[in-house]
Amino acid sequence: MNVRITEVGPRDGLQNESATIPTETKIRFVDALSEAGFEEIEVSAFVSPDRVPQLKDAEQVFEGIRRRAGTIYSALVPNEKGLERALRAKAGKVSVFTAASETFNRKNVNASIQESIERFKPVAEGAARASIPVRGYVSTAFWCPYEGKIAPDAVVAVVKRLRDIGIEEISIGDTIGKAVPAEVMTLLDRLLDFVDQDRLVMHFHDTYGTGIANVLASYERGITSFDSSAGGLGGCPFAPGASGNVATEDVIWALTRSGATVKTDLEGVRAASDLLSSVLQRPLRSRVREALAGAKPKSSA
Amino acid sequence: MNVRITEVGPRDGLQNESATIPTETKIRFVDALSEAGFEEIEVSAFVSPDRVPQLKDAEQVFEGIRRRAGTIYSALVPNEKGLERALRAKAGKVSVFTAASETFNRKNVNASIQESIERFKPVAEGAARASIPVRGYVSTAFWCPYEGKIAPDAVVAVVKRLRDIGIEEISIGDTIGKAVPAEVMTLLDRLLDFVDQDRLVMHFHDTYGTGIANVLASYERGITSFDSSAGGLGGCPFAPGASGNVATEDVIWALTRSGATVKTDLEGVRAASDLLSSVLQRPLRSRVREALAGAKPKSSA
Repeated sequence: MNVRITEVGPRDGLQNESATIPTETKIRFVDALSEAGFEEIEVSAFVSPDRVPQLKDAEQVFEGIRRRAGTIYSALVPNEKGLERALRAKAGKVSVFTAASETFNRKNVNASIQESIERFKPVAEGAARASIPVRGYVSTAFWCPYEGKIAPDAVVAVVKRLRDIGIEEISIGDTIGKAVPAEVMTLLDRLLDFVDQDRLVMHFHDTYGTGIANVLASYERGITSFDSSAGGLGGCPFAPGASGNVATEDVIWALTRSGATVKTDLEGVRAASDLLSSVLQRPLRSRVREALAGAKPKSSA
Repeated sequence: MNVRITEVGPRDGLQNESATIPTETKIRFVDALSEAGFEEIEVSAFVSPDRVPQLKDAEQVFEGIRRRAGTIYSALVPNEKGLERALRAKAGKVSVFTAASETFNRKNVNASIQESIERFKPVAEGAARASIPVRGYVSTAFWCPYEGKIAPDAVVAVVKRLRDIGIEEISIGDTIGKAVPAEVMTLLDRLLDFVDQDRLVMHFHDTYGTGIANVLASYERGITSFDSSAGGLGGCPFAPGASGNVATEDVIWALTRSGATVKTDLEGVRAASDLLSSVLQRPLRSRVREALAGAKPKSSA
């Protein structure tokens, strides 16, 4: 089956970096990702610069990147104001972000899940007027750092509310990386009862080493759309509790070896990761990256 | 289900370390693993010191360790001479090692698979006389670095020959870590036709990030015995082509979270890995180790 990978490194990855990344580097990173042939890249977020200082240059990044035909350049927006900025920047898609855990949502955006979804209504309406699609993230869909295990019922309820306001593409996030395939299968069984499988995106983090197992279990269940970040960007392994998205390199490798067709070019992703690795001055967190670097030492290493 | 983990770090892990590890450190490492409650630890190999210099102190290690009731202390032996040394050292089990790939076996031990198995006959007979069990390793059971993809038929043939000479416990190895769950399922379907599932051990390496996916797929198929190494020991990530066994910490975490009962204590394994990490002066390769170190910084870090 054809699998579609949304590269979330420039947004979900970089927002967790403590060092400020120069705008020019972000543009080069997105351009390198475009060359790798992604069908979708989440470029930045139009949020308050106070809340996410790393992404305060969202406008400049969108302005600086070269847009490749066939790639959707999306942005996270928290509300209508964010949508307006995203539309001015010519984002091809916007994403809104809520959680399956009330406590996590309140700590993250200081609102209940229902209040969050109310804010998304004008976003969904405005995006529809502008003829661009909207994605809805549902984070902490398996485990919450505050509430522990999240019941599939809670996820189902949030997904239904998002769909009620016209958001059809749903990305289900294992935010703290604690899910295992058995839990993924249980939740997918519930969600696929009422969501088309091509409207569901799975978004895993590789905190405890089960990221690829969860990707392959989802694929086995018919899911063909995944979020990941080049080099597993997204939180430094030495920072308390932080950990990266599952690495795009590892996702491409595992899915391709399992019979999937992936348009994104693994070598192109490695090149984009090289660029970030040299700027961040640390090795990135991808098993495939380590293995291929070991097998064919590069002069720059 | 109860899952049994054989810790292979002291043998399969350390044999790939280029720096010589002092005998006293190996003894402390095995003792720390014993305290973690493993049901089986592969302590060393009684092979030619010219071939594996790192393990030339096998006798001294066996002599120095404290033996915990309930743990089997095993050793790899290449032939009858190795068996004699292992029996004198009071190993509780011996393992023999062959491959599913003719080319790999020839490069590894300079013999055809059939010749290897001939050498194992007196080992199996001598072990039976001494009333200790024998394990047969079948390496390159999915992919070979020389021959590429290995047909399940080739694995089935080797397993049958090992059983013909009385070797009932079989450890199936993904030596270069290229297997994915779909391949694991295909091979297990073939093997479980004629081998009891409690006689099969799966031995994965985490080279490309699919190690845990393969463990969980095997468990799903009824396998309840796995090999792994503390901290993913087994080859430096910066050496061409080398890469470690799947990390015991990650295996315990993923299986326990998936409903399995594992007697080995995760904290005890972390302590054993800490010891090796400080001697090797590098972080070990386990996602769970990284995550738990990040969540609860230790004073020794």
